[in-house]
Amino acid sequence: MTGAADAGPDPLPAPSTDAAFLEEALSAADAAAFVAVGDRFDDDLRYLTRFSGPDRDYAFVRAAGESVLCAPTLFAEQAGREFDGTVRTESQSDPAGVRAAAALSASGVDGGTVLVPRRIPHDAAVHLERAGYDLESTAAVADARRTKTEGELDCLRRVQRAAVRGMARAEEILAAAEPDGDELVWEGGPLSTERLRRRVNAEFAAYGVRDAGNTVVGAGPTAADLHYTGTAVLRPGETVLLDLSPRGPHGYYGDLSRTYVVDSDGGWERRAYVAVEAALAAALDEIEPGARANDVHREAAAELTAHGFDPNAEEGAAGFTHGTGHGVGVSLHEAPSLREAVELEEGMAFTVEPGVYDPEQGGVRLEELVAVTSEGYEILHEYPRSFAPTAE
Amino acid sequence: MTGAADAGPDPLPAPSTDAAFLEEALSAADAAAFVAVGDRFDDDLRYLTRFSGPDRDYAFVRAAGESVLCAPTLFAEQAGREFDGTVRTESQSDPAGVRAAAALSASGVDGGTVLVPRRIPHDAAVHLERAGYDLESTAAVADARRTKTEGELDCLRRVQRAAVRGMARAEEILAAAEPDGDELVWEGGPLSTERLRRRVNAEFAAYGVRDAGNTVVGAGPTAADLHYTGTAVLRPGETVLLDLSPRGPHGYYGDLSRTYVVDSDGGWERRAYVAVEAALAAALDEIEPGARANDVHREAAAELTAHGFDPNAEEGAAGFTHGTGHGVGVSLHEAPSLREAVELEEGMAFTVEPGVYDPEQGGVRLEELVAVTSEGYEILHEYPRSFAPTAE
Repeated sequence: MTGAADAGPDPLPAPSTDAAFLEEALSAADAAAFVAVGDRFDDDLRYLTRFSGPDRDYAFVRAAGESVLCAPTLFAEQAGREFDGTVRTESQSDPAGVRAAAALSASGVDGGTVLVPRRIPHDAAVHLERAGYDLESTAAVADARRTKTEGELDCLRRVQRAAVRGMARAEEILAAAEPDGDELVWEGGPLSTERLRRRVNAEFAAYGVRDAGNTVVGAGPTAADLHYTGTAVLRPGETVLLDLSPRGPHGYYGDLSRTYVVDSDGGWERRAYVAVEAALAAALDEIEPGARANDVHREAAAELTAHGFDPNAEEGAAGFTHGTGHGVGVSLHEAPSLREAVELEEGMAFTVEPGVYDPEQGGVRLEELVAVTSEGYEILHEYPRSFAPTAE
Repeated sequence: MTGAADAGPDPLPAPSTDAAFLEEALSAADAAAFVAVGDRFDDDLRYLTRFSGPDRDYAFVRAAGESVLCAPTLFAEQAGREFDGTVRTESQSDPAGVRAAAALSASGVDGGTVLVPRRIPHDAAVHLERAGYDLESTAAVADARRTKTEGELDCLRRVQRAAVRGMARAEEILAAAEPDGDELVWEGGPLSTERLRRRVNAEFAAYGVRDAGNTVVGAGPTAADLHYTGTAVLRPGETVLLDLSPRGPHGYYGDLSRTYVVDSDGGWERRAYVAVEAALAAALDEIEPGARANDVHREAAAELTAHGFDPNAEEGAAGFTHGTGHGVGVSLHEAPSLREAVELEEGMAFTVEPGVYDPEQGGVRLEELVAVTSEGYEILHEYPRSFAPTAE
């Protein structure tokens, strides 16, 4: 890093994407080319191109063994830095689908089957069809993204380290907060979910990652709301649930949850915490290559049941209201889901995050981001679990 | 705010969207309904629903005079809080296009013309067509977004105030930086674009807004690169260009650019700064209801020409390489573009951002975010312009 006072290391470069999986998909479908169209918010395109891109549509074309990016002229330098392939900037005022068709033609592909992601913008699909191509949707990109390369795992480890920094900051603040009547007070004022959220996000920024709008901080009843974004003041004895999912400069997300209680009187929240801790341990213990993803969920649910919580509660009711985990990569939610009966493979990276909620009491969730290894699993960055917040 | 040490005010609520424009579009096209499908990154959906949403597809349906949101069950509480209309959560494992068709049918619309945005995901379009609807694309949403309500302008003012806070932090750091040989040093270490970017982003976080991955800091040659994201060390006498576009919790973006030079010897960078200052003043002076957007651009370009700079330079060459401005709202780049010959209307909000670049020298850009008023224009949050950074 370039100065002693700075929190985080320099950004990692984005990993490269090997296009071999695309060539295999083309062969299997007897297709001439693959086309994807989208903007900077399209994570398949981010994975395919590593281009951090504009907020308007651009196109990626794989044809004749080559990768082509049709980028806006103003982004030519950035595309050249980030993309491993040919950058085309001509005809930039044409719609991306029209530019993709021109790139196909320039690659010698003048008709035949073209594979596209199912979510390709409808106008781009229509432009390609009008240019004489038959479109067939493919899940090849989502499939390739299910397992991570070592370079991708490094990006996940790095951003999860940032998530841990944010959590440590939150725990430090909670450990220093003092009950004052029915409120928690910190640094001279009531401590709210919004104050805590801002401090965590500032820690992320100093570390060189983005909060990506995903910093969920709920307290008491709002901890049972999975996507709370309000400004409630924290109270002694209630659950404070933090779910942090920063995004690194390479596009990979972290994901980490902890739940703390300041000044607990040991009621519902203590029982819930013990149950969730046990569920997390049981779920983690299930992870190894060849195990089934939904068995991980089943182990977590069984442990919660054994502790007296409903493992199949509806959203808004009391119990376990969601799945045990989801894949994480350049999307925060991707394959595999721990609801699927798929076999776990080395290199899969996903969250394990059992939780129990009660709209009248609060919510408890503990979450680790793990990767499947040849031996079992790796927690991508360790951070202690603790019911009462403790200062370092 | 809930504590003395916190930088920013509590978040503003999102403004409401009046669906009257959709009803007009439906009448004009003799269509029975409007459907949009997308995820949280789709800004048209954000505008239509104010739902900050999941990172997978959901659907908005306008039919029979009612607005319906087909949301994932896990987001039901959030949708209920944020969306003004009916939230449907049944059949959530079906694709969003299928759910939209079911919602149409439930509203009594069983066929006929359905208006959709041109970028609707292709699979959703196919599902709607298979369900018996004829799709027709509409620009009604983008058109409605061209002019802002007073509630939207308040959101823009608020987030631009945050952009100003970030800029003030950067200027303060630059004013305190000291030349040491061919580097600038601050707080014990070389000052890099990355260190400056992180400090600005931490200021945003403390203020309750997101940097949204848009904090561009370039220096010297990298200031001529419009989307530089590297870690170059700043040097005395070179242009330091900051372009800050935070996003507020309501989804509206700010946009503010300044260029500073520490320890200038008054060469290219001084001439460029004087030219850009004059171009900005000339462009602003052109803004009033009834003026044409591209006349604002023309005034800026003429002023740069008068100062000896090429007003039509290619990206990567020396001169003015981009347009003078773009609309800003729930997208960072939206209509109107100042390249268009459209008439300016009261309530339009856009950037005015002339700049000149020389890959061998650096880059200078000054940018204000303005709204057209009945009298002329309003700068949405004022911040002084200065060639040499000055501490407050």
